Amino acid sequence: MARIGATSAGGCNRQALTDLDRQGRDLFVRWAREAGCTIEIDEVGNIFAQRPGTDRDAPAVLAGSHLDTQATGGKYDGVYGVLAGLEVLRVLNENAVVTRAPVEVAVWTNEEGCRFAPAMLGSGVVSSTYTRDFAYAVEDKAGLRFRDELERIGYLGSRPAAPRPYAAMFEAHIEQGPILEKEGLTIGAVTGIQGAYWFDITFEGLSCHAGPTPMEMRRDPWSAAVPVMAGAFALARANGPWGRATIGDVRVEPGSRNTVPARVVVSIDIRHPDAATLETMVAGLHALVERECAAHGIFGQTAQVWHMPATAFDARLVERVVSAARRLGHSCMEIVSGAGHDSLHTAQFAPTTMIFVPCAGGLSHNEAEAATAADLAAGADVLLHAMLEEAA
Amino acid sequence: MARIGATSAGGCNRQALTDLDRQGRDLFVRWAREAGCTIEIDEVGNIFAQRPGTDRDAPAVLAGSHLDTQATGGKYDGVYGVLAGLEVLRVLNENAVVTRAPVEVAVWTNEEGCRFAPAMLGSGVVSSTYTRDFAYAVEDKAGLRFRDELERIGYLGSRPAAPRPYAAMFEAHIEQGPILEKEGLTIGAVTGIQGAYWFDITFEGLSCHAGPTPMEMRRDPWSAAVPVMAGAFALARANGPWGRATIGDVRVEPGSRNTVPARVVVSIDIRHPDAATLETMVAGLHALVERECAAHGIFGQTAQVWHMPATAFDARLVERVVSAARRLGHSCMEIVSGAGHDSLHTAQFAPTTMIFVPCAGGLSHNEAEAATAADLAAGADVLLHAMLEEAA
Repeated sequence: MARIGATSAGGCNRQALTDLDRQGRDLFVRWAREAGCTIEIDEVGNIFAQRPGTDRDAPAVLAGSHLDTQATGGKYDGVYGVLAGLEVLRVLNENAVVTRAPVEVAVWTNEEGCRFAPAMLGSGVVSSTYTRDFAYAVEDKAGLRFRDELERIGYLGSRPAAPRPYAAMFEAHIEQGPILEKEGLTIGAVTGIQGAYWFDITFEGLSCHAGPTPMEMRRDPWSAAVPVMAGAFALARANGPWGRATIGDVRVEPGSRNTVPARVVVSIDIRHPDAATLETMVAGLHALVERECAAHGIFGQTAQVWHMPATAFDARLVERVVSAARRLGHSCMEIVSGAGHDSLHTAQFAPTTMIFVPCAGGLSHNEAEAATAADLAAGADVLLHAMLEEAA
Repeated sequence: MARIGATSAGGCNRQALTDLDRQGRDLFVRWAREAGCTIEIDEVGNIFAQRPGTDRDAPAVLAGSHLDTQATGGKYDGVYGVLAGLEVLRVLNENAVVTRAPVEVAVWTNEEGCRFAPAMLGSGVVSSTYTRDFAYAVEDKAGLRFRDELERIGYLGSRPAAPRPYAAMFEAHIEQGPILEKEGLTIGAVTGIQGAYWFDITFEGLSCHAGPTPMEMRRDPWSAAVPVMAGAFALARANGPWGRATIGDVRVEPGSRNTVPARVVVSIDIRHPDAATLETMVAGLHALVERECAAHGIFGQTAQVWHMPATAFDARLVERVVSAARRLGHSCMEIVSGAGHDSLHTAQFAPTTMIFVPCAGGLSHNEAEAATAADLAAGADVLLHAMLEEAA
């Protein structure tokens, strides 16, 4: 799979609904058919490969993730969860295992969002987070529409993009963070996904020449922005170990080195897996902006750019993962996902959890993304046993 | 003069060595000839209009400034000092005043530096801060050379761009800051020009996703940059009232809102009129960068982009300005210039001072630049009397 869209730096560039995405999908469909699966494609291109069980009416047990990558992405993000699911199907076949419930592998469309924003779009339509027609109308930077590109690559299916009854949904994934590696553990049983807010905080003061105006006569936007930046980091640390604050970008206007800026715009990303704690952090940030702006005569304005609600995964499934890991002799901890995943959406309509394995240096969305064969096999093994227990 | 290059917003766009600069120079030369002056042009286009005294060998008393403006400049910055000098010549004529020393008005080439960097180039060649050939080779953004443009507009003169003996050099100018207006005073007797350093401080950490990496495992460049920014402002305040710190620009890389930056580059402008205090502030800044980077595992690097040495003006001339203001009944304070001026260079080869008058809101380098006729007249009056005492 990694050969399709392989980059010279060892990564993958296989963006959603490109010719390369089609090749990746075709390869998956061929492998799934070779494993005896039936294939269904829904209206937004999500692929479902099903291995039947003995009980036709039993809700299916799913493994799923995505095959699309970032422009300078790695070989593991998303792809691992799909191929681990395929491996489960093959192991069941090789061992002639008969399950009561059907076992399915899902490939969700456009998880990355780098070509078509927003991210996690295919699973988001199924969870009714977005309408089908919203997804259809989304355009890439070249003005190409999601629906047209979906049709062009041959993956505009007819199955309604709506939930069916599912017994369980598991997503195996590289951690994309440094915790498992640092703790020396193999399996992360994921209890939920951090909630996140994106804010743009604008600080408006009065521009003047760097020389003549005394400090005490200035209305320098930094006089409020700097303590707000420091305070945001303090808020995250005070809500440790899961609180996060990131200042990913700052815009300074006019941005001349001998001019006190008229305006500073600070982009802040605030995260916490507990919804109530996250709201407390956000309230703390708003209070901080208000206090510092009032203290320094700065006009402050906070715009909410995006919000991803905190998602708690299914406790029974988390326990399934923990006990499977323990039984198989793999070290394990409960962990929270800091990044968004399709599981954020599937958790809206099916019991869901994720299985994390370590990745080198916590690196992801990067061509140097790496994971060991042993860890990847361990994750697939835990996936197999957790799914089997649900499907048996 | 303000009609040449007038902008619709009420300002002036008469950049150095353009056709409009030629028109402004031609108008000045015509007015100076009408006032009975002889005109000399030097090798870098500086114009000297001389009204002879009775003693041929006496060093001249100069008033001077510049006629070029910023692209969105005002009507007063520079121009006022030239026209106030011209007004002195006319008043001497109208009153048939005979002076011992010659009285001159100088127009310095390319003070603004917005078309040809560096700024204050014409006076800087005379003070040997720059060589003539360095100035000749400077190019604008279109690749046009200073010497070619000087020749094209007809102001490539033959007088050597070198100092002559001068008794005194006065530059009348709008304050370009808010102090006189705030204090309700008319005349600023300028004791010197602030020294300034421009630094680019680069903070290098490790980029990672905003979600998965715990705060305590991050190497976020902001962890050092934010306290350095706060510390720089504290340094300026601790060295008040003349200390200044300005963060005019910040660059964040990669600048993605859900990514901890790999690199933050902070541009800091540090100023103080006392050279020793300025050096102490700079040492404090370096220590701050070193301490915060070491404390947070950040690689810090400080690049010096520019330095303007602190310049003390001639105490006798400052006293001349103060006593002239007092005699004429104009309120007056001693003040420091926060911005650079041609006087920075003339002070290298002649006793120099400046005379400031208030400008509305301290605004300058702005089309809305404004000063009252009464204040401008008061400044010219003080200039007249200070020059007369030197030339008598």
